[in-house]
Amino acid sequence: MKHLLSTHDLSRTDIESLLNVADHMAEINQRPVPKVPALRGKTVASVFFEDSTRTRLSFETAAKRLSADVMTFSASSSSVNKGESIRDTIETLSAMGVDAFIVRHRSSGVPLAVTSWTSASVINAGDGWHQHPTQALLDAYTITRERKAGNDLHGVRVAIVGDVKHSRVARSTTHVLTSLGATVTLVAPSTLLPNDVTAQAATATTNFDEVIEHCDVLYMLRMQKERMDHALVPDIAEYCDRFALTPARAQRLAPGALLMHPGPMNRGVEMQVDPNDVAQSRILTQVTNGIAVRMAVLFSLLGSGSASNLSKGNE
Amino acid sequence: MKHLLSTHDLSRTDIESLLNVADHMAEINQRPVPKVPALRGKTVASVFFEDSTRTRLSFETAAKRLSADVMTFSASSSSVNKGESIRDTIETLSAMGVDAFIVRHRSSGVPLAVTSWTSASVINAGDGWHQHPTQALLDAYTITRERKAGNDLHGVRVAIVGDVKHSRVARSTTHVLTSLGATVTLVAPSTLLPNDVTAQAATATTNFDEVIEHCDVLYMLRMQKERMDHALVPDIAEYCDRFALTPARAQRLAPGALLMHPGPMNRGVEMQVDPNDVAQSRILTQVTNGIAVRMAVLFSLLGSGSASNLSKGNE
Amino acid sequence: MKHLLSTHDLSRTDIESLLNVADHMAEINQRPVPKVPALRGKTVASVFFEDSTRTRLSFETAAKRLSADVMTFSASSSSVNKGESIRDTIETLSAMGVDAFIVRHRSSGVPLAVTSWTSASVINAGDGWHQHPTQALLDAYTITRERKAGNDLHGVRVAIVGDVKHSRVARSTTHVLTSLGATVTLVAPSTLLPNDVTAQAATATTNFDEVIEHCDVLYMLRMQKERMDHALVPDIAEYCDRFALTPARAQRLAPGALLMHPGPMNRGVEMQVDPNDVAQSRILTQVTNGIAVRMAVLFSLLGSGSASNLSKGNE
Repeated sequence: MKHLLSTHDLSRTDIESLLNVADHMAEINQRPVPKVPALRGKTVASVFFEDSTRTRLSFETAAKRLSADVMTFSASSSSVNKGESIRDTIETLSAMGVDAFIVRHRSSGVPLAVTSWTSASVINAGDGWHQHPTQALLDAYTITRERKAGNDLHGVRVAIVGDVKHSRVARSTTHVLTSLGATVTLVAPSTLLPNDVTAQAATATTNFDEVIEHCDVLYMLRMQKERMDHALVPDIAEYCDRFALTPARAQRLAPGALLMHPGPMNRGVEMQVDPNDVAQSRILTQVTNGIAVRMAVLFSLLGSGSASNLSKGNE
Repeated sequence: MKHLLSTHDLSRTDIESLLNVADHMAEINQRPVPKVPALRGKTVASVFFEDSTRTRLSFETAAKRLSADVMTFSASSSSVNKGESIRDTIETLSAMGVDAFIVRHRSSGVPLAVTSWTSASVINAGDGWHQHPTQALLDAYTITRERKAGNDLHGVRVAIVGDVKHSRVARSTTHVLTSLGATVTLVAPSTLLPNDVTAQAATATTNFDEVIEHCDVLYMLRMQKERMDHALVPDIAEYCDRFALTPARAQRLAPGALLMHPGPMNRGVEMQVDPNDVAQSRILTQVTNGIAVRMAVLFSLLGSGSASNLSKGNE
Repeated sequence: MKHLLSTHDLSRTDIESLLNVADHMAEINQRPVPKVPALRGKTVASVFFEDSTRTRLSFETAAKRLSADVMTFSASSSSVNKGESIRDTIETLSAMGVDAFIVRHRSSGVPLAVTSWTSASVINAGDGWHQHPTQALLDAYTITRERKAGNDLHGVRVAIVGDVKHSRVARSTTHVLTSLGATVTLVAPSTLLPNDVTAQAATATTNFDEVIEHCDVLYMLRMQKERMDHALVPDIAEYCDRFALTPARAQRLAPGALLMHPGPMNRGVEMQVDPNDVAQSRILTQVTNGIAVRMAVLFSLLGSGSASNLSKGNE
């Protein structure tokens, strides 16, 4: 594996292999000194053309735990504003000696384009409405490890609720979870449902209340106010009335279900309940697992040898 | 000690103990390689909701000298702007694996609130008009070490001059210095004097010229132009006339007195003399000592074993 | 050598010595783990009062490869905006323990001024129209190493094209290349030619087309739209017509010539050809060499021992 651009590049075996590597990384993260020298001397550049402190810090923390050097390129304070092209930026950083680029951009396809401008590895950290593969992997890791039944999700019912149409998270996570055998139902008003539900191996409904009691995983999406065409959600109050997670709805979740959210939450919009009051919430577990999964991805792209040997390599 | 939120949480013994630990840190800082592995594998997150490059760099430098990893969270470029709550930010970073949060916020009490959202240690790096405990400790360290008479400040006369009422520095430093035995006089126009002078174990005056010759420490506060209600200082020229440190006033300082300022200075406002021309200035010594004192605080919160053993643990 | 402020402080021997040290650094950069402990425990502060992500990252990468700690001071988010003087900023950072300052400022002479405010080393990373010495050194390194004929440039014809008058790059690079024996021709409209061409040991012409076939190095300058007085370039289209590198002009370059640019490029302005389509382009080689040359400068200022011994000191 040279790049991680899309979950569609991953076979089921690839996915399971990454989740198993993440188990080793999670063990490292439990140590008093959670660091291994696996990527010493490697340089990982985070190149975010769209702000995301949370995702950037997760990747950078993962890189540091593997002892890689981190180069942070923030588009807002850079020559990109002086008219330098993205290509020139990537070529310039690459010439300084970068081993992996972590790229976020609001346009679909930019991470793929980056692969043609550098010989380094490229990880898609979110591109437009397209893909966010490490989010999907950490979601799969969270569900499988919380259920303690291996990597198989056969028979597991997942409801993904919100602006599914414009969500790269929904698109990526649906693909990975169905690849592992899960049944995914997309829940949204019809204007926010994707056109290719069947192609995504999912089903769709506009009735949140019908699915909430019958799901093993309730996955709430962030309401992307800034991205959404007003015509699609004419009345935010009505939308919330039908699709927000309220305390009443949260009470209808099965005791063994999992509540998830990719963050950052819009409290008072899609999240009208405090997740700290919901026993089923695994929202912070997702964040913790994000470090292990991103370490697994970085190690798989840049490391050598087997992850199971890292326990011997502790600095 | 789990957190450092306020000087009021520190007994005199605690204060003296921290100052003594800082002596070991100052020794480390004198070495050709000023680094020890005491906090290797620990992650220190600086979370500044209010800009302060100076304080942030001081903490981050201290953390790096103890070999901790540093995670810098800048509120301005983060999801906080997208409506994410401070609580969500802290919980998210905490879930990534943070051992200590260094928090600055313009509202009093935020660092205390943070302690209920994470199991990590919390250090108050300045909250509203309330507290700035590491500033107070570095001030006490500077005065005691410059006087070379141990940790006791009995009989030492300190004048703190400026907008005392709105100054967390004045509040914190007054408390620590009086705890060590010093006599503190607060100097300001009556509108800028605090209501609780007696509770602070201090005295107050509106006459700068009466105290300047009789103090062992002259502590000038930054004039917080951006915070001050115009009604409190109707005429900045008149204010400066009465309360700025002019060359004439600087000449009246006793030869053995110490001139201090928490920085950044407002040259031409409260500082109308160049401190580089005042032999008694210890303003840059305060900055240097700030590294040692913050190392002592971080080590006391996160380290194990005795600071005196660090000399054996040099990387 | 304590500081690197101007190429005029460097004798020909100094220049050759730095280029030879850079050879050792280039060898380190080829290793699987491109890091040496030469500057462990040293703190390098990058203090950029003018944005330049590219140059800053190049210096910071160089510092990290030598195992120095990096302190990044960004003027825009700092107390400089609260009225703190540059001097106070430097004195404060210096008091925290800085071994070298890397300074960029839009006013000529600031790096020199900084040397009087700190006992640390100072490296000029670009000041106004004045100097950018590490750019000049990396340009000389690139030309000499590409030509594989030692450090001597006798008989090598260099054309520097663009807004020569306002370019610190042109000024610095001309000086270093002529010091090594090269013949430099400055190419610009008469309003953008410097007044001191002869003092620079260069010749000048307004006719790009006359020199392009006869140069061994074609050095295109960035068109500094933001700096230029409109009166100097009344018609940008006419300027480009005469001085831009078009595909037609690129074809007239000798096969063995080198095409260089300090970056960032203004595509569509001075660069109307894609350098990736020009076999003679060494623009990305310049970037790669910039790391080695800046490592050489940092090591020469802060390191001890001989650079040739670094091969034994790999971490």
